[in-house]
Amino acid sequence: MASFCYSRNVKIILRKINDHILLKGCHRNVSEVSNAWDRVPLKDVQRFIEECMVKVGTSPKHAKYLATNLVAADYRGHYSHGLNRLDMYVKDIETGTTCNDKEPSIVKESVATALVDGNNTLGPVTGNFSMNVAIDKAKNVGIGWVVAKGSNHYGIAGFYAMEASKQGLLGMSFTNTSPLSVPTRAVKPTLGTNPISLAAPARKDSFVLDMATTTAALGKIELHDRKGINIPNSWGVDSRGKECNDPKPVLESGGLMPLGGSELTGGYKGYGLAMLVEIFCGILSGSTYGPNIRKWRNTTTVANIGQCFVAINPDAFAPGFEDRMSDLINTCRSLQPAEGEDKVLVAGDPETQHMSNCDKIGGIPYHPNQIQFGIDLAKKLGVMEMNVIKNS
Amino acid sequence: MASFCYSRNVKIILRKINDHILLKGCHRNVSEVSNAWDRVPLKDVQRFIEECMVKVGTSPKHAKYLATNLVAADYRGHYSHGLNRLDMYVKDIETGTTCNDKEPSIVKESVATALVDGNNTLGPVTGNFSMNVAIDKAKNVGIGWVVAKGSNHYGIAGFYAMEASKQGLLGMSFTNTSPLSVPTRAVKPTLGTNPISLAAPARKDSFVLDMATTTAALGKIELHDRKGINIPNSWGVDSRGKECNDPKPVLESGGLMPLGGSELTGGYKGYGLAMLVEIFCGILSGSTYGPNIRKWRNTTTVANIGQCFVAINPDAFAPGFEDRMSDLINTCRSLQPAEGEDKVLVAGDPETQHMSNCDKIGGIPYHPNQIQFGIDLAKKLGVMEMNVIKNS
Ligand SMILES: NC(=O)c1ccc[n+]([C@@H]2O[C@H](COP(=O)([O-])OP(=O)(O)OC[C@H]3O[C@@H](n4cnc5c(N)ncnc54)[C@H](O)[C@@H]3O)[C@@H](O)[C@H]2O)c1
Ligand SMILES: NC(=O)c1ccc[n+]([C@@H]2O[C@H](COP(=O)([O-])OP(=O)(O)OC[C@H]3O[C@@H](n4cnc5c(N)ncnc54)[C@H](O)[C@@H]3O)[C@@H](O)[C@H]2O)c1
Repeated sequence: MASFCYSRNVKIILRKINDHILLKGCHRNVSEVSNAWDRVPLKDVQRFIEECMVKVGTSPKHAKYLATNLVAADYRGHYSHGLNRLDMYVKDIETGTTCNDKEPSIVKESVATALVDGNNTLGPVTGNFSMNVAIDKAKNVGIGWVVAKGSNHYGIAGFYAMEASKQGLLGMSFTNTSPLSVPTRAVKPTLGTNPISLAAPARKDSFVLDMATTTAALGKIELHDRKGINIPNSWGVDSRGKECNDPKPVLESGGLMPLGGSELTGGYKGYGLAMLVEIFCGILSGSTYGPNIRKWRNTTTVANIGQCFVAINPDAFAPGFEDRMSDLINTCRSLQPAEGEDKVLVAGDPETQHMSNCDKIGGIPYHPNQIQFGIDLAKKLGVMEMNVIKNS
Repeated sequence: MASFCYSRNVKIILRKINDHILLKGCHRNVSEVSNAWDRVPLKDVQRFIEECMVKVGTSPKHAKYLATNLVAADYRGHYSHGLNRLDMYVKDIETGTTCNDKEPSIVKESVATALVDGNNTLGPVTGNFSMNVAIDKAKNVGIGWVVAKGSNHYGIAGFYAMEASKQGLLGMSFTNTSPLSVPTRAVKPTLGTNPISLAAPARKDSFVLDMATTTAALGKIELHDRKGINIPNSWGVDSRGKECNDPKPVLESGGLMPLGGSELTGGYKGYGLAMLVEIFCGILSGSTYGPNIRKWRNTTTVANIGQCFVAINPDAFAPGFEDRMSDLINTCRSLQPAEGEDKVLVAGDPETQHMSNCDKIGGIPYHPNQIQFGIDLAKKLGVMEMNVIKNS
């Protein structure tokens, strides 16, 4: 039987982020809609997150890692992994569920690989440490494949992949996550939304694939529920494991469908990809895995999540990587769109569009609920409020 | 406008393999249905393929590599990549489009990476060579990441991944392929069915994910057309790039949909994964890529396909990999199935079932058309026919 019944509390949090998620799901409309919101300059979101984290006992260095990651998520339009998760990280540190006085360490290594113990530091702390190790190895021997145990929720997977691509390397990152996805033919959420990311540099350009291996995010389903509209096929199943278009049973006692949806439409492939991520993360690293991972939004048990970080040096292969990469990207972008469709995009383009919009309007546009959350948290922790620029 | 109009000749070939593909698509019924067919012992399929290839000038060593790969495909139930492709390889060698007198070579290498030039040898020759290089490196430094250019169609991707897993390593393999898949929002087939494979060893068991990044194979759509039945959503688009349930327009002037189907059901993720494969294969290696790859079943142009082979040594990470792997696999297999569903499977299980069935019935069951194709080819090349065991 399906088993992710999230609490009323979580439902409220989800409601707060719903509109953000709506926008995230409709990238091509994001600029129009979000322009109606008040905005906060990136630097001030960064400062605010850092100060909140330091206030509950995080070291300034770790707080900075976390803030940089969350700001990147919001800036890229992935609001579900930005400021709105700050309360979770604050709680994790406050309760001591996540350590604030340790550093990740290398357990075992070769010239091209490493096993890292995150030592229960914040996800972005383990993530940055591990990706840097991978990058160094890739610069030396062409590739670095680093696996971490003892980590925590690390935000958007693409962040780490892009750390490599900024340095001219290909980057990949994967994480296992709390069970929400129901394997093909089954009824019970067993695997996480286990994201895959690959960032590859092109000439003054890049390809950034950063995707959960479920068809849709949980929040997208919540939003449809709140609006009283049906969800498309391939998104979710009810408590009997049946694909369903009514969001309620999916949320109350069902689960997410792997990318592809039902068996007939290739959902077993999405399920296989979620397993691939779990193998690279939990199984290789010896962290918790699959259904053993703590439930979503649980902040009382140590997470001990597994992650994987890969850097590949294109110079180890055929010369001219970035030129070919640009050619492929531009070929796709200039494909004729189907009637009624917008421009054909390449992975990373929706996020680039969102960032350009933020730049244009002078900050990240936030939903009023998110701004209010910031004001409340500032009061609670005694931290200076975010500098909100009113939409005029 | 969509542009893969395959010739009448190809249509006939496809018709011949349709029933095989039907069975492949319905793994859970494969044993019942195929038991009605005549069968050929594995060894004799192997002998037959080797002799045909040698007859047209392939070296015995190369012929053996190819035969081993094609037999593995049929044995695993992937008939679309086995004996029925023999005519393509025969033609490639006969016309000199593929070389029969060269060996692959290493262009560039580090302790953990290599760039291989297949020197236009048969795909399985380049594939075996490259995977062996990756395996050696993984045994030495924990990982081997090898990329090949100048290769040809290499059969089932999982074959190479499994070469690594047989030796206690994780194996991955990827290949770019002829343009058949239409990117999200576009109308023109631009990327291949670009398969991803990962094989991971467990205790007397394994996980073998081996999947095209399109929702369905082309042949599955052909079959629906022949039967006059609709195809499910997410499978194909017509010449205007619109998702459609009538197989005819998909085949005549449309294309395949990436895993996930439409944009609403996550098809842009399948499109992103096809790009990931292309980046690892064509872009890293400097071979042809994307829409530049020769059209499907074209045997007059040199293919110069790109492939990627990865081996990872689990000993470089946390001890106990195979135990955790078995635990995860068995957890999934013992999940309660939804009402009306068969047992929950793990990637590789449908193929294992097919192999057990072959073992039970003493050979690979082949559709009558496939047997007839063997008889015709034997006559044409002056090679001893396959030893067909009649179904009694
Ligand atoms: N840490 C965790 O536990 C966790 C778990 C799941 C997801 N995440 C993160 O959540 C974020 C959102 O994931 P998601 O799956 O909802 O992302 P998404 O569905 O919004 O986008 C997935 C990818 O597809 C690309 N894309 C979108 N539309 C496209 C189009 N029309 N054409 C081509 N490409 C297109 C995007 O650029 C992106 O790379 C990611 O950053 C992911 O890493 C994190
Ligand atoms: N060389 C090429 O050009 C090329 C191109 C495309 C595909 N291929 C090959 O074609 C073959 C078939 O590809 P496909 O995508 O049609 O494969 P498929 O759809 O039959 O199976 C894909 C994967 O899903 C697994 N699977 C199937 N049903 C499952 C279930 N119910 N639960 C869990 N797992 C399940 C299988 O074990 C397999 O690993 C592969 O071997 C692939 O490598 C080759």
